[in-house]
Amino acid sequence: MLYVTKKIKFSAAHRLFNPTFTDARNEEIFDKCNNIMGHGHNYTLEVTVAGIPDPSTGYVIDLKKLKQILQNEIYEHVDHKHLNYDVPFLKGIIPSAENITVTFWNILSEKISPGKLYRIRLFESDSSWVEYYGDPIDIPIYELK
Amino acid sequence: MLYVTKKIKFSAAHRLFNPTFTDARNEEIFDKCNNIMGHGHNYTLEVTVAGIPDPSTGYVIDLKKLKQILQNEIYEHVDHKHLNYDVPFLKGIIPSAENITVTFWNILSEKISPGKLYRIRLFESDSSWVEYYGDPIDIPIYELK
Amino acid sequence: MLYVTKKIKFSAAHRLFNPTFTDARNEEIFDKCNNIMGHGHNYTLEVTVAGIPDPSTGYVIDLKKLKQILQNEIYEHVDHKHLNYDVPFLKGIIPSAENITVTFWNILSEKISPGKLYRIRLFESDSSWVEYYGDPIDIPIYELK
Amino acid sequence: MLYVTKKIKFSAAHRLFNPTFTDARNEEIFDKCNNIMGHGHNYTLEVTVAGIPDPSTGYVIDLKKLKQILQNEIYEHVDHKHLNYDVPFLKGIIPSAENITVTFWNILSEKISPGKLYRIRLFESDSSWVEYYGDPIDIPIYELK
Amino acid sequence: MLYVTKKIKFSAAHRLFNPTFTDARNEEIFDKCNNIMGHGHNYTLEVTVAGIPDPSTGYVIDLKKLKQILQNEIYEHVDHKHLNYDVPFLKGIIPSAENITVTFWNILSEKISPGKLYRIRLFESDSSWVEYYGDPIDIPIYELK
Amino acid sequence: MLYVTKKIKFSAAHRLFNPTFTDARNEEIFDKCNNIMGHGHNYTLEVTVAGIPDPSTGYVIDLKKLKQILQNEIYEHVDHKHLNYDVPFLKGIIPSAENITVTFWNILSEKISPGKLYRIRLFESDSSWVEYYGDPIDIPIYELK
Repeated sequence: MLYVTKKIKFSAAHRLFNPTFTDARNEEIFDKCNNIMGHGHNYTLEVTVAGIPDPSTGYVIDLKKLKQILQNEIYEHVDHKHLNYDVPFLKGIIPSAENITVTFWNILSEKISPGKLYRIRLFESDSSWVEYYGDPIDIPIYELK
Repeated sequence: MLYVTKKIKFSAAHRLFNPTFTDARNEEIFDKCNNIMGHGHNYTLEVTVAGIPDPSTGYVIDLKKLKQILQNEIYEHVDHKHLNYDVPFLKGIIPSAENITVTFWNILSEKISPGKLYRIRLFESDSSWVEYYGDPIDIPIYELK
Repeated sequence: MLYVTKKIKFSAAHRLFNPTFTDARNEEIFDKCNNIMGHGHNYTLEVTVAGIPDPSTGYVIDLKKLKQILQNEIYEHVDHKHLNYDVPFLKGIIPSAENITVTFWNILSEKISPGKLYRIRLFESDSSWVEYYGDPIDIPIYELK
Repeated sequence: MLYVTKKIKFSAAHRLFNPTFTDARNEEIFDKCNNIMGHGHNYTLEVTVAGIPDPSTGYVIDLKKLKQILQNEIYEHVDHKHLNYDVPFLKGIIPSAENITVTFWNILSEKISPGKLYRIRLFESDSSWVEYYGDPIDIPIYELK
Repeated sequence: MLYVTKKIKFSAAHRLFNPTFTDARNEEIFDKCNNIMGHGHNYTLEVTVAGIPDPSTGYVIDLKKLKQILQNEIYEHVDHKHLNYDVPFLKGIIPSAENITVTFWNILSEKISPGKLYRIRLFESDSSWVEYYGDPIDIPIYELK
Repeated sequence: MLYVTKKIKFSAAHRLFNPTFTDARNEEIFDKCNNIMGHGHNYTLEVTVAGIPDPSTGYVIDLKKLKQILQNEIYEHVDHKHLNYDVPFLKGIIPSAENITVTFWNILSEKISPGKLYRIRLFESDSSWVEYYGDPIDIPIYELK
């Protein structure tokens, strides 16, 4: 196997809180990330596809095609958005980098071909990031009041 | 003269709109940056101080001191905040990178010593940024409805 | 004045040689950069515009507009091209970073508004780059044999 | 096991096309990468060696030695070259990042010691790269017309 | 499993030598790294924790907590220090990036929870680094004369 | 005028102290930077030369030549050294980034041609740096006890 990666960036706002927690507990747990009006990041998303290069092209997957998938399935929905309010597929999900990453995996794993989605890395900043290889993880969906 | 720079980062949400514009005009002018719930960035702030090194220390200004000033005067007020709602000194200001930069200048120019504030650079992303050397610029303050 | 910058990247091949030099002199002067079939770079282009922010928008120039100008006037003509052969506006020009930068200035200075083109930086790599502020420089155009 | 990595950079031109395809098909498949005269990149190569640190030196492999191997075996052959024409070990190989990476592996795996070649990463740009761990992959060699 | 990473930086001096070697052998093996008075680096440390996100927070581990652990257990002991002389837990250890990494693992693996320490990366520069996943490795401790 | 820049890196140790200060005052002023055994950095040095491109080459100065000058005049003397003890031209100078930069200027300004040394930037880390354009500054030389 060989692994090819495409990186894109998007800018979004989010707020971390659990609607079943009291305000005090949200404040205690999420601290600055719980700021009511939200805060934001320039996110960096790296999507890695595993496969064997097609002998007639030398490509595992055409990275222009992979970029287009990322554009259509992710970027168009999250760039310059508030992740808590504006993104249908994140509705009710606590938008931690972990949960966003798992959600992106669930969307992308069926859309990518040729090759097979192997890894997603999501950077919230250049000093904090998440890596995920698709082990099944349940993300709870909370009802927003 | 010699120029020393300290760089800090902060994460914040903002929304670009002019409260005297119609929604349609805000949409037309600010496009994705006008998203109602806001979006966000990891901002990078570079603050440059001009001066002559003190012969007994070799410092124009102790960068630990400069960092503390940036921490107290800027970072504590804007990190993990929504720039339109949470920051008193930005109240009513359209939070474009340009306007934020001029506002930061006005705050910092009186606080920095020894040396003299020479330049502020504010990066909204690694492909978009603003540079300012303190030429007087009036930033209008809009009444928020 | 306040300065706003947009950065774009493009990938291109080039070969450095002077058609009036002997092969030996081209080899001596341009060394590895004289490789007959060319070599290539991921170029980074930073274009800076000077102006006063429009009070009603907070923008010196809308960076989406500036990006579009760079896309149309530069990127479309040079990305994934051989700078010696494929780019009409570089025909006969020795494509050193210096000469490319001056040529880009001549193209962009008339296209950018509002604001005024202030500086172009062109990176051939992350350790070699050129900065230019528009002082008139004549770039000779050589006849290609 | 412990993994040590050395990173080097090189600049090269390449053109993606399959000599058994029609011009139209090459254009369709490889798009901008099929530009006849080629285009180019600043490539970044990361080579990772696995091993146990020698108790008397604390080194898995002396990174100065690893750098010298990369210099001799790779850099001298590809830097400031056109990968389709100037590099004997790439002759007839479609120089996709995938195929270059596998070819580099085949060269380096026998040259590196102490330790064992574990991973090669090749970046064509900071948003596109390939990772390879040595699973056997056949790269077709095409006859160039 | 899902993997979260926190990155911190520190600046330190070190000298590579084996006290059981002759000066000539130290010079031969460690070359420039054997400079008697030491040299230094801005080290970058990336610490990765594996786990399942807590359904009520979306966190594998609160990265603010992980940062605090790195601050207390590592940064406070090594930043602006000479690694050969000033750091009790490195006393007598040849401070190669490999040995430092294994030593950091031994300190951190018991301190991190929730989640489990999965990987440490230590960069001595942006072109040289070490990756470690905790396979048991014995690091000899030399008596310093 | 047009400005070309070459960037190099070096790794060195240093300690900040003034031999005419008491230990307590050195501790108070230089804090962590006063650590007796020193600490270290990966320094980045950017050297900018101003000139007009030679019409027959397109070069202000051949960057390979500029790199060689930086290699010979700076890198060979400071890389993997302790700046307080190992570098003749820094003897007795408090090795703050400011003082190192002025010292480098004095060395390089006479060695660079064609073109004229225009600016030196010295980064002690990616968040702290100095810029200098050659205004005469006297750096005191202290007698080391």
